This record gives sequence, C-alpha cells and structure tokens, in this order.
Amino acid sequence: MSSTKFALGIDFGTESGRVMLVRADTGEEVAWSLAPYASGVIDRRLPNGSALKPDSALQDPRDYLAVLERGVPDALRRGGVAPEDVVGIGIDFTSCTILPVRADGAPLCTVPQYAGNPHAWVKLWKHHAAQPQANRINEIAARRGEAFLGGYGGKYSSEWFFSKVLEIVEEAPEVYAAADRILEGADWIVWRMTGRERRNECAAGYKGMWIKGRGFPSREFFRELDPRLENVVAEKLAAEFVPLGARAGGLTPEMASRMGLPAGTPVAAGNVDAHAAVPACGVTQPGRLAMIMGTSICHMLLGRARQIVEGMCGVVQDGIVPGYWGYEAGQPAVGDIYGWFFRTGVTAQLEREAGERGVSAAELVTEMAALLRPGQSGLLALDWWNGNRSILVDAGLSGVLVGATLATRPEEIYRALVEATAFGTRTIIDAFEAKGLATRDIVACGGLAEKSPLVMQIFADVTGREIRLPRSFQASGLGAAMHGAVAAGHYKDIAEAARRMTGLQEKTYRPDPGAHAVYERLYDDYRALHDYFGRGSNDVMKRLRALRTG
Amino acid sequence: MSSTKFALGIDFGTESGRVMLVRADTGEEVAWSLAPYASGVIDRRLPNGSALKPDSALQDPRDYLAVLERGVPDALRRGGVAPEDVVGIGIDFTSCTILPVRADGAPLCTVPQYAGNPHAWVKLWKHHAAQPQANRINEIAARRGEAFLGGYGGKYSSEWFFSKVLEIVEEAPEVYAAADRILEGADWIVWRMTGRERRNECAAGYKGMWIKGRGFPSREFFRELDPRLENVVAEKLAAEFVPLGARAGGLTPEMASRMGLPAGTPVAAGNVDAHAAVPACGVTQPGRLAMIMGTSICHMLLGRARQIVEGMCGVVQDGIVPGYWGYEAGQPAVGDIYGWFFRTGVTAQLEREAGERGVSAAELVTEMAALLRPGQSGLLALDWWNGNRSILVDAGLSGVLVGATLATRPEEIYRALVEATAFGTRTIIDAFEAKGLATRDIVACGGLAEKSPLVMQIFADVTGREIRLPRSFQASGLGAAMHGAVAAGHYKDIAEAARRMTGLQEKTYRPDPGAHAVYERLYDDYRALHDYFGRGSNDVMKRLRALRTG
Repeated sequence: MSSTKFALGIDFGTESGRVMLVRADTGEEVAWSLAPYASGVIDRRLPNGSALKPDSALQDPRDYLAVLERGVPDALRRGGVAPEDVVGIGIDFTSCTILPVRADGAPLCTVPQYAGNPHAWVKLWKHHAAQPQANRINEIAARRGEAFLGGYGGKYSSEWFFSKVLEIVEEAPEVYAAADRILEGADWIVWRMTGRERRNECAAGYKGMWIKGRGFPSREFFRELDPRLENVVAEKLAAEFVPLGARAGGLTPEMASRMGLPAGTPVAAGNVDAHAAVPACGVTQPGRLAMIMGTSICHMLLGRARQIVEGMCGVVQDGIVPGYWGYEAGQPAVGDIYGWFFRTGVTAQLEREAGERGVSAAELVTEMAALLRPGQSGLLALDWWNGNRSILVDAGLSGVLVGATLATRPEEIYRALVEATAFGTRTIIDAFEAKGLATRDIVACGGLAEKSPLVMQIFADVTGREIRLPRSFQASGLGAAMHGAVAAGHYKDIAEAARRMTGLQEKTYRPDPGAHAVYERLYDDYRALHDYFGRGSNDVMKRLRALRTG
Repeated sequence: MSSTKFALGIDFGTESGRVMLVRADTGEEVAWSLAPYASGVIDRRLPNGSALKPDSALQDPRDYLAVLERGVPDALRRGGVAPEDVVGIGIDFTSCTILPVRADGAPLCTVPQYAGNPHAWVKLWKHHAAQPQANRINEIAARRGEAFLGGYGGKYSSEWFFSKVLEIVEEAPEVYAAADRILEGADWIVWRMTGRERRNECAAGYKGMWIKGRGFPSREFFRELDPRLENVVAEKLAAEFVPLGARAGGLTPEMASRMGLPAGTPVAAGNVDAHAAVPACGVTQPGRLAMIMGTSICHMLLGRARQIVEGMCGVVQDGIVPGYWGYEAGQPAVGDIYGWFFRTGVTAQLEREAGERGVSAAELVTEMAALLRPGQSGLLALDWWNGNRSILVDAGLSGVLVGATLATRPEEIYRALVEATAFGTRTIIDAFEAKGLATRDIVACGGLAEKSPLVMQIFADVTGREIRLPRSFQASGLGAAMHGAVAAGHYKDIAEAARRMTGLQEKTYRPDPGAHAVYERLYDDYRALHDYFGRGSNDVMKRLRALRTG
C-alpha cells in the first residue's frame, strides 16, 4: 500500500516560527502552525532587566525550541497527518543570526553565570551594533587581499558572522572564552534535532567567509583582527560542512518525542530563509531571477561560473542550488519605504476620503497612483531611504526626491517611490547582465508580490521583464520542506523536488511597451542621479548624515 | 491754527483694495478700509460666460474704482478725519497689470463691442498665458543685443508689459487696433483720479523695457517682434513719465466728489506694491535689504550705480527711491511652499494631536520644527517648487529633497523647506555682494515676517544678518501714503517722509553664531546642488517636466 507522504518545512522568522506541512508529491499546503517567539526581538532590556546598548537585537534560543515542540504537533493535528507519514524535515532561518554555546550545545545564555551578559544571547540578523568591528574587518581584509572579500561585493557587513564574533571577543571576552562553539541559529537547531553539529554551506558561504574547497581565511588574518581570534576556526567553528538538501541526521529519540514524530525522521541541512525560497519559486536554473519582496528585496540568481558582480551581497558555490553558483543581491528597504510613506505622507484629507469610501488610506492612495501614467508625476526618486545595498554597498546613502512643484500630490510621491524601488532592482539586473548573467524573466514571492499588483506592474514595466508568482504564499517554508523531502531521498535533487512540488500562478505581469519606453528614459536619469550621489561626485549625503548625528 | 494732517495710501492688491489713512506727521495708522473686488480674479469665464484659456488671470477695472468710491469715504468716516485734512493721496498696485483703454481712458472691456473679448480686460500680473510671446521677445532681444535685457537679469518675463501686449496683438488684433492706450493699472487709476495720463517710471522701468534717459527700444525691435507693433510706443504709450513721489495731478472735481475729498487734493505718481513698501520699511539708502515676504519674496536693495547682477528681476534708476538705482530680485514661492507642505505633508496623526492640543496642525508642526537643531533633520532641499526667479531665472526648475531616511518626520521636512527658502535668499544676497552691493542687515515686511518667528530666525541664522520688522503691518499702503505726502509737498523727499513716518519694531532676529556655522556648511551643499541642477550639469528637471506634460 502507498499512503500519501508529507514533508515538514520550519521557517524561523524574526518574530515567530512557522511550521508548514505539505504533501511530498505535490507540494500542496496541508496545514501550518504559527508560533510567535515569547521574547520576540530583545532590543531594550534583557529578561533580568539589564539595559542593552543601541542597535542591539537579541533573541532567546528557547523560543526556537518552542516552535518545534508546539508548532510541529499542532501542524500535524491540523492536517490530520500521521507522524509516520512525514518523510523529512527541513528548516530555514534568518541569517546571519548566531549564538555561543557549550560543547553540549547548551546556549550560554541559558547558563546562569552568563545569562546577564547580552553577548551570551542570540545576536539576531538585524543586530547592528558591530559596525566598528565590520569596518576593521574590511580594512584588514582589503589590505591583505583576502579572497572572500570579492565574493561579498567588496564589503563585509556588520550583520555578518565575524563582525558579531569580534564584538563578543572585544566586549565580553569571558563569554567568548566560555563558548565552545559559535554557530548560526539554523545549524544550532539542526544540531538540537539530530544531535550532530553539521553546518550548512549556504550560511557559511554567504555570511561566514567560508569558501568551498578553501575553507576559512588564515590564522594570520584572524590574528590580525584580534590575537584572541587566531584559533577561532579550530576552536569554535571546525565542523562538517554539508550542502543544501543533504541529510544532516535523523531526529534523536528525545526530540522526536518532544515533536511528536518518529525517531530517525530525516532532517536536512539548515538553510537561509531567502535562499530556501528560490527553488520554491521554481528557480533551479540560471536565467530566471527570484525576488523575495517584503520590507526589503533579496534578488537571487544562479550562474554557471563565479563572477565578481558589482555590489553583490554574496556569490557562493552551491549556495542556493547545488551545481550552480548562487548570487545574492538586495535592496535594504522597499516595502519599508512604502510603509514610511503611508506613515508620513498621507494627509488627513486622504484619510477622510478613504474612510468615506470604506477603504484604507493606503488602498486609496494606491488606487489614485494607479491612474497616473508613467512620467505624469514629474517626479524622480532615489530609493535609498535605508541606504543602498546592491550595487553601491553604502549604508550612508539616503533618499532623494526631484521634481516637486506646488501641484505635487501625495499619490504622485508614492508612485515615484515605487518607481524608484523598481529602478533600484533594474540596476541590479543590469549589474548581473554586465557580467553575462542573463535575467530573462522574474519570479517574485513575499508579501509585496502577493498584495501589490500596482507595485508588480511597475516592476515589470521598469525592468521590461515578465514577472510571475509562485503558487505557494509561503515560499521559504515550502523551500525548507522541499529540502526535507530531498534529504529524505524522496527526490534525487532539489530540481526534481521543484518540478513536482512547485508551480506558478496563472497571473503574469507583462511589461507594457509604452510604459517601458517612458521608464527607459526615466531610468537614464535615475542612473545619472545614482552615480552622482552614489559614486563620490557629491558626498552631500554623508555630510548630511554627519550633521544629523551631531 | 494747525490741525493734524493725514495722508491716504491706497493699496491695490490681487483680491482687494485697501485704503489706509495715516497721520502725515508720524505715519501712525488711523483707519483702514478693505474693499474686495466684486469680480476677484477672473480665471475661468468672463462675465458673459465665455471660457478663458488656461493660465488666464483677468480683472474688471470697475472694481478698482469701487475701492476709491467706497473705501476712501469709509476710511475717513472710521478715522473721524475731515476731508480737508487729507494732504495727499498715493497709490500702489500689483504689477505688471495692464489694460487697453480708449483715448478718454474708458477701458475697452467696458465698451459693449469688446466686452466679450478676454484681451479687452485687465491682464493681472499673474496672467501666465503669454509665455510663447516672452520666449520670442527674449530670443529677438538677445540676438539684437537690446540694452534693456541686461537690466532684467537677461530674461524678460511672460508676466511683463510687452509679453502681454504682444499676446493682444497676436490673439486679438481688433482689440489692439481699438486700444488708443495700453497702460499699467497704477497709471490708469491715477489718470482716472487726476484726468491726466502720467505714467510712473517705476513700472515702466521694471516691467516695460523703459530706460531713463533712453526711453523704449527702437521701432526696429518692435517691428521684428511683430510688424503691427512697430509704432506701439508712439501710438499707444507715449506719455509723460514721472518719478516716484512726483505730483501726478490733483483730484478732478468729479472724482473728488465720488471719493468724498476736496477737488485738487494732490495725487502722487503710481507705484508698484513691493516698491512702495521699501521706504515704509525705513529703507532709503544702500546697505539694507528690504524683503517683502508672503507667498513669494521680493528682495529690494538700493545702489549708487548700475550693476548687472546675476538673475535680478530688474535694476532701474530712481526705481525705488529717487537718487539711487533700485534693484529687485525675488523668489517665486516661499509661503506658497510652506502652504504646499501644510496641504500635502501633514498626516492625520498630526492633525489629531493638534486638535487635542487646541492648535492648528501648522502651529503644531512649526512648534516641533522649532525644537530641531540646524542639521538635525539630515535633510537638504532646493526651494524650486515654483521654479527659480533669482538668480537662475528659470521657471522650468523644480523642487528637490535630499537625505530622506525611514526615520524622517514631517516636521523635519517642513524645517528643511524653510531652510531651503532661506538658502535661496542667501544666494540672492551673495549675488548682490559679488557686485559690491553690500547687505549689512535686513528689514522684512509682509505676512510671513509678522506671523512666523521660526521662519524669521532661520532666515537670520542662514543669512548671518540681523532682521527687523517695520512698525506698520501694511508696508505697501503706508509707502503709498508716504508718497502721497511727498507729492503734496508735506516732505521734501521720501527719505524725510521715512524718517518721520516709519519706524522699526523692537524685536530683532539676531543670527545665532552656532546655528550660522552649521548653516554655512549646509549652504555649501545647497550651492553645489543649486549649480548642479540649475546650471545645466544635469537637466533632469526639464526632462521630468516634459514627461509630465506629456
């Protein structure tokens, strides 16, 4: 007899974890369970009351375990699925999110001696307190000509692994000394489930200076960063690095019991959330760009060889889909800019009109913006409200609006902001294509892609490329489940899993030729302003930022 | 016996006329009467229902007479002043506001045959339909090297005399042919009062291509504009040109009776509103800048010689105060930009907060903006929401905001706009000083000066100059009355009248050295952006405007 089989994908987000239960043969979503983190993002005070320094963003790793223990049984119950019909489990995680642990995997923050030290806690991806450390890493790596730097667009981020490790060394050497291991949240949770410390190549490559076949930078490099770091690799990191879709292990009896699953259920290597979404968008070959669109956008593309593309966040061998080089680029604020506008630019008059019409102000503004033809606002913006990641890699840049008149209306400003974010994506596509990495069309997932037809049409018109959406609204969770199915041997590889478990919606955003022609002209001007403000012709934004912070 | 004497100043504005009755010895305001124009600004349909073309702005000259006939008796009654105690009358008028009339002074729009033709009506200063005509004037004048052009900053405006005359010739040749005279509203009203057509040198010089001692451009120039214009000077304009403060004549018995004054009461030559305000601010010598601040700003300065200053609106001998060259510069939108912001940039949340506090949203935003230190917003704007008059003379420029972040707040944008308008004034002061025309300090009048302490302090901090306000809130009307007193021989000249009839308020806006230092740095960046966007390095604004209008 052959009963239907299922895969579990567990998506560890910023505020909560989401357990997805899908059919292993079709990818169809059967049930899901949302488990908010009890402590959420810890950015003001530790549970013991200690105040945190600015830009801190910590988490409690016990909240991750609660996702497993409550979310998995809940999803099984909702789906009416028998535990033995789950073929495998995959997880995806925010990254770079790291924690120091003891040799047995116990987080230092759960050890009473260290619980009052913020550096013993999980440093969440958006913990931004390690900029000085990142600056030193960049300076030393550039001087030494370290190989990893080119793969990161020439700049290592304050959000990434060794920036955060160096922050621990400098500010809490006792925590660093007590840490037997320091690792990504994804790898820690896989360790908890399987009892084996297997680190995923994806996070190691995109955030951790690790290069497949070469490993980490030299001891000399780390010693130059800080003498105490000289042996960091051997002492705290050395482990087995496993590719995406590999079987990291099987559920330990203890965890199996806590999760309500059979012991030995296969668990895939950990994955990063944006990267897991790519095959769930059906993207397993070069030529199609995957965009994960929300508060920010991640742009993911596959290539047959390694190229140094301007301003990429990373290029990693087998980093997204085994067999290809995975390219990641990004815009640090997209939905966040629209959100800023809806907070800051919607007048009381518009709110009243919206109220009379029974719609939200955002809906009304969107409706009015949709009536404008390209170019009609007379406005052009640079989408740098939160700096520029790709292709300029410069967090010190800021937003610009050109063309305001006494007749300028809020919906025109909103449309100009949407257009600007689309131009930002266009610069990324152009940077890829300049290195021979074609982008024939686009698959977009995430909240913006699902909810904002006007945004999607403008992205299609600006990029001149068709955009389609995956069937699943939960691309990261589905991608995690797909990797679970692959790790279980249910499919031979992720490409086969993608053929069987994913599909695209019928709806296609096709570029309108007339709109595209206007946007081509506007894009020329966008590029001129982009280069003027972004490449050193006029560093006014840096000076304004310096004045702002006093 | 010597009874107290009075002077009448009649200020013909855009929506209404205001009759000011002041003591001739002290300038003290005794009474005033406001007379709104029954037809206001005619910008959609003539009284007979004919639709007007876009950018039209017409008026009915009978509304001006109503100001005399109702406003003057009303002011006398309110002030309890005997008609024989009025020593003289001065008027000031918007400019360039022109009308075609018959030889007897009857406006063509009051002749039934022409009443249905928009070109027979008063073309108000802000009638903007004559841009094609202005373009041709500029092209031909530049090619021929006409002397007047340099005095207008190199560009003759669509608002000015011959742009409007050429529009009549081209679009309504029958009206042009029927017009025995074409003249400024100020000169027409003086003609109505005195029975003598005396044209004032101020408007002729600032708007009418007239140069003292040289007269108008040649017949050849006018023929090249349009053959029908060849003899325009001899046929429609030739008249006696009289300086400011001269006695144009005395009230005719008929008008004296209609105005409730003795026949023969002296009437001064007409004046332009902004120009009349200058001596009322106590400015009768070089070195002190008079700013008339409202929806726009007029910057008025006196000099001992003629200089070609970049982007001036005009430089006219004896054009403001006899004995000096009068310089006029301007910003076409100042209060208008703040008004745009309060219409477009105030959120419902701010309106609610203001409501709870019992203040207006504008007051709340102003209060919040005042708490910011210079530079704290991280924003820098170019104040070109309505183009740039001085010093770039380019209506095709538009507004810019640089430095926006996800943390940018409405009150920060408002403050940046105020700072931008102050930087705009600073460029004008710098242009004057580059030609040796010093601006030691500033006297500011008008609605903004009276009502916006934050704006005034920022202007002081940005310009690095003390700013004081005149005692009178009605500087143009007081200035008109002062000229009436001079025309009556009550004072030997306007300087003496100013010494006796004007004064400054105690309140002084003094530049704060710390704020000024920050603004010096921001001003360097303002100038860099000003030159980049305004001097042809990047004509993006022109391209955006072209796209906007399709």
